[in-house]
Amino acid sequence: MTERTVGAAERLVIVGGDATGMSAASQARRMRSADELEIVVFERGRFASFSACGIPYWVGGDVPDRDALIARTPEEHRARDIDLRMRTEALELDIDGRRVRAKDLESGDESWVSYDKLVLATGARPIRPQLPGIDAAGVHGVQTLDDGQALLDTLDRTEGKRAVVVGAGYIGVEMSEALINRGYEVTVVNRGTEPMSTLDPDMGAQVRTAMCGMGIEIVCDAEVTEIRTDESGRVRAVVTTDAEYPADVVVLGIGVQPETTLARAAGLPLGEHDGLLTDLAMRVRGHENIWAGGDCVEVLDLVSGRERHIALGTHANKHGQIIGAGIGGGYATFPGVVGTAVSKVCDLEVARTGLREKEARAMGLQFVTVTIESTSRSGYYPGTAPMTVKMLAERHTGRLLGVQIVGREGAGKRVDIAAVALTARMTVEQMTALDLGYAPPFSPVWDPVLVAARKAVVAVRQRG
Amino acid sequence: MTERTVGAAERLVIVGGDATGMSAASQARRMRSADELEIVVFERGRFASFSACGIPYWVGGDVPDRDALIARTPEEHRARDIDLRMRTEALELDIDGRRVRAKDLESGDESWVSYDKLVLATGARPIRPQLPGIDAAGVHGVQTLDDGQALLDTLDRTEGKRAVVVGAGYIGVEMSEALINRGYEVTVVNRGTEPMSTLDPDMGAQVRTAMCGMGIEIVCDAEVTEIRTDESGRVRAVVTTDAEYPADVVVLGIGVQPETTLARAAGLPLGEHDGLLTDLAMRVRGHENIWAGGDCVEVLDLVSGRERHIALGTHANKHGQIIGAGIGGGYATFPGVVGTAVSKVCDLEVARTGLREKEARAMGLQFVTVTIESTSRSGYYPGTAPMTVKMLAERHTGRLLGVQIVGREGAGKRVDIAAVALTARMTVEQMTALDLGYAPPFSPVWDPVLVAARKAVVAVRQRG
Repeated sequence: MTERTVGAAERLVIVGGDATGMSAASQARRMRSADELEIVVFERGRFASFSACGIPYWVGGDVPDRDALIARTPEEHRARDIDLRMRTEALELDIDGRRVRAKDLESGDESWVSYDKLVLATGARPIRPQLPGIDAAGVHGVQTLDDGQALLDTLDRTEGKRAVVVGAGYIGVEMSEALINRGYEVTVVNRGTEPMSTLDPDMGAQVRTAMCGMGIEIVCDAEVTEIRTDESGRVRAVVTTDAEYPADVVVLGIGVQPETTLARAAGLPLGEHDGLLTDLAMRVRGHENIWAGGDCVEVLDLVSGRERHIALGTHANKHGQIIGAGIGGGYATFPGVVGTAVSKVCDLEVARTGLREKEARAMGLQFVTVTIESTSRSGYYPGTAPMTVKMLAERHTGRLLGVQIVGREGAGKRVDIAAVALTARMTVEQMTALDLGYAPPFSPVWDPVLVAARKAVVAVRQRG
Repeated sequence: MTERTVGAAERLVIVGGDATGMSAASQARRMRSADELEIVVFERGRFASFSACGIPYWVGGDVPDRDALIARTPEEHRARDIDLRMRTEALELDIDGRRVRAKDLESGDESWVSYDKLVLATGARPIRPQLPGIDAAGVHGVQTLDDGQALLDTLDRTEGKRAVVVGAGYIGVEMSEALINRGYEVTVVNRGTEPMSTLDPDMGAQVRTAMCGMGIEIVCDAEVTEIRTDESGRVRAVVTTDAEYPADVVVLGIGVQPETTLARAAGLPLGEHDGLLTDLAMRVRGHENIWAGGDCVEVLDLVSGRERHIALGTHANKHGQIIGAGIGGGYATFPGVVGTAVSKVCDLEVARTGLREKEARAMGLQFVTVTIESTSRSGYYPGTAPMTVKMLAERHTGRLLGVQIVGREGAGKRVDIAAVALTARMTVEQMTALDLGYAPPFSPVWDPVLVAARKAVVAVRQRG
């Protein structure tokens, strides 16, 4: 039996009720009334519209409760004529028949729901390597509020205070800080040579120093081979090729991959990172009535010209808004990203945008690299702190290719200067003339980004 | 008698030994040895290479001593073969004869010094309205370290604790905070309707609130008519058309004007703000061997296409570097400014870039204006604080025209996003897609600048 549209002229079905799905629903509803457009959203979890990025701060105690991470409750969405069905999982897409098979996870009931327009906002899932013991009790991902709650429940129930975090990307780093804040002994087991593989290793080394300073033990160049459990099936240790690290709780921060199981089964186009491929209006390529956005799609990297998978709330929200506008009869596009990311490790701020050395090389680009040390404020102003800026510029043309910044207060968001410059395809020479805000509490008279740009200009000329 | 070049192939004479002059000297010296280029600098004050922007923090006690504001001492410059002559004033330029008449202010000796190349870096002087009593003891400008020292000497000698600051631009505001920090009762007498006339009045009102919160009394729409003195000639009160404000010390923060007396007398080209006019390489128009930069020149405003006078250390340093490169045989240009300024009032950060409403109207531009309230971090993250962003966009085209931001920590330097976007002549629609750094400690998922851009897009479309 298929549930068909009643009353409204059209039905929009959205699979996934987080940032992209609910932004799309809200934007479409602002533009089209319930008479014109019925909106049905399937969310398999128990929460919608939550900030996954806030989970480490909730676990660490900086954010007092889970509800603070919920932007809008299901009831608030329903009050705006959005038929949000919680704990309902989409099991199958019938593209030709324009319908979705959905299962109520509470009752077990299944039904086909027809659509005129479809949005896939299925997000990402944590990478769980196929290791012995990976599904043991006490091993946690932190992708959803349900995951966060499960981790907190484990922490409450567990007496031991030894935590192992697998992976030292930004989630791994944030989670290790959260666990230190809760009084755990934390060991981070990392495959790369330095934490934060989103940075070049020379910049990542500064993150390692900061983590050590907080009392986090960090093991690099380490390959996890097994999660060892006790007789009850609970986690007991994380085993690498070289050593064994006792663990009362394990957090996986290895990264995520697009959740595109449904899309793949339905034959929708996926890219080399397994994300859905869309056009500029966020419509799935070749499908005029199907949109996709957020962590389940690939996005165009404007610097390299290639598709990438970047799971980030800010992109997911933009996608949702663009999709909703398109469905509502408006017009908006998502031109792409430049790869900006910022995070905080204790009082260390870490930021990047554009390409790292490795990425630039892989794209066939030739470039110069400069690194400068400067300060966040005028040298004489109280609270000034060191800042390192690394800059990549293309050989001959001098086009900015990427910036990485590590420092204290005021370092992280300086990367936005480079993000806008990358979007505008500026050269480092053009950047030296940028009219950036200057006053002693905010910057030296030459902003650190300008200092880096000046040095990059010299390097481009010398390299020829 | 004229001092002529001996030994070196050429002589460069620089008038003014602060940011522009000494940057130019240093850059030229890096590129050309003392055999090739003799460098003579005349500085009429007792300090060179100092940070005038730091004076309020020195007076207020945040910066412990004057020497912290000196980037490089005269001895350090001389050690690098720069003939820096302190307490030496240039009295006359003989352009046809390629010579400068200079006076040693200590000995009173005068002489003509010939040049092959000349740099005018004479800076700006505080505006001192022709009022009765304006030159009384206890009335101070704060343009140079000598000025700052004189003010501190007055504060040390004076028993009374009543200070009146005339003018509520950024210097007036910073000085009023400095004086409050030193335990003074501070009254600010301001001609405009709100402090910070570099902002639109609706944004300036927030600065007024912050100043009141610090215990500063602020009197707006007030015209000073007289500085009243006692029988010994010391300042006693500041008189306006409506009232009289008792004062033991008075600080003038009315603004500055280009110091171009010498240039005017020599017939060099001045603009409508009395600043020297230069070409893109910072050469005085029509004079291939004379350069000028810093607070004594006018700069091209890239947004309005008109010349402006902006006294700011960051421009002065850029000019010096460009001039030095040109003289040294290199090539660099100063394309212009977009009018970025940032300052701090207690914990309030205040920033602007581009055009205010009044400026845009005066340029014949039609535009829409939006103002949004957002926060510095994710709403749930500790320490998040409100932020107001005002944005102007051109009618029809949607081109960004200006941004003003008022908020707490993290507000001020966000203006750099808009500064780069203005330089790249972006539309507000293009800005909505900017890939800005997002993580809960740094920004809501929609950065406040993106929120303003989205609202501006809607306003541009509605206005048509």
